[in-house]
Amino acid sequence: MQQEIIEFLESLEYGTLALSIDNLPYSLPINFVTLNGCIYFHGSKKGRKVEAIKANANASFSAVKAYSIIASYMSSKDGLACPATQFFKSCIIDGKIEITQESQEKIDALNALMAKLQKEGGYKDLNDPIYKKSIAATNIFKLTPISSNLKLKFGQKLSDERFNMIIKQLEQRGTQEDLETIKLMKEHRC
Amino acid sequence: MQQEIIEFLESLEYGTLALSIDNLPYSLPINFVTLNGCIYFHGSKKGRKVEAIKANANASFSAVKAYSIIASYMSSKDGLACPATQFFKSCIIDGKIEITQESQEKIDALNALMAKLQKEGGYKDLNDPIYKKSIAATNIFKLTPISSNLKLKFGQKLSDERFNMIIKQLEQRGTQEDLETIKLMKEHRC
Repeated sequence: MQQEIIEFLESLEYGTLALSIDNLPYSLPINFVTLNGCIYFHGSKKGRKVEAIKANANASFSAVKAYSIIASYMSSKDGLACPATQFFKSCIIDGKIEITQESQEKIDALNALMAKLQKEGGYKDLNDPIYKKSIAATNIFKLTPISSNLKLKFGQKLSDERFNMIIKQLEQRGTQEDLETIKLMKEHRC
Repeated sequence: MQQEIIEFLESLEYGTLALSIDNLPYSLPINFVTLNGCIYFHGSKKGRKVEAIKANANASFSAVKAYSIIASYMSSKDGLACPATQFFKSCIIDGKIEITQESQEKIDALNALMAKLQKEGGYKDLNDPIYKKSIAATNIFKLTPISSNLKLKFGQKLSDERFNMIIKQLEQRGTQEDLETIKLMKEHRC
């Protein structure tokens, strides 16, 4: 995974995992962490998730940060609905999942997940022997990417006229999300 | 779909669609609207999404509203990381997708999508003949649910002691998200 993708994923609390059982898709939201170029998440030793993964290791993981809804009138004066859209940043990672067997790798993944989601600390390191039983009873899943695709939609290819109209309208509406959207529109302008 | 699921989905701008091509999962974020008990979304007449749907109509759609991260120390004084979690509301809908052929149904779905995402209006109704060519050139997809599963995680089954500890800690942290989380914890307490 590129550094840009890792940083994006580390800024998000959850993503959606898609699995397939006998060609029937199955999707579910998961908390996750990236570590050594892979995506780690945890789960029960029983249930639909682990059964699906055991039956078919192929997975598609996607994560999104949605930005402003761009109303149709923000980039066009003709009154048509067609230009309505939403700006976003997303990442789709296709790959294969393994159930981590090595106990140090399980500990490292759980420590990374805690460091990501509980930045203020306040817990014993997962290397502490007190966790031995709990860790043995938990599945840690490792998704190794085969392909990863970062997608940015911030009006990069719009004409200057439409691009500037949107900036002006977002400035007027002026929510926190709109201000962040403007920042990213300017950053990613081709 | 139950009314509670429809209301939840109508409060969200996007969800994640999982498809499967030859038992390889494929996930992608989509804007969507619910109408007549189905989920509608639109897309190009070409590309990976429509090809995947034509090859296999089965789909799993999931949508999430994430709430507060519950730090491990919020519900336990033993210093262990294990209680760390995130509260959330999510919905997973499994079903089959058709490409809508009937033009009034396409118009209705697009009008519903606009009404959902651009509540302030400011566009010509999609029944206007001016849209005829654009609508003919757009695919409208209809996901008919076979099963739908709403999942709430708000500490419903925690002991009174742990539940009240969390409420107190969230009140102290006091972000907007924490206050919304407290409201839902109280609403859904068993």
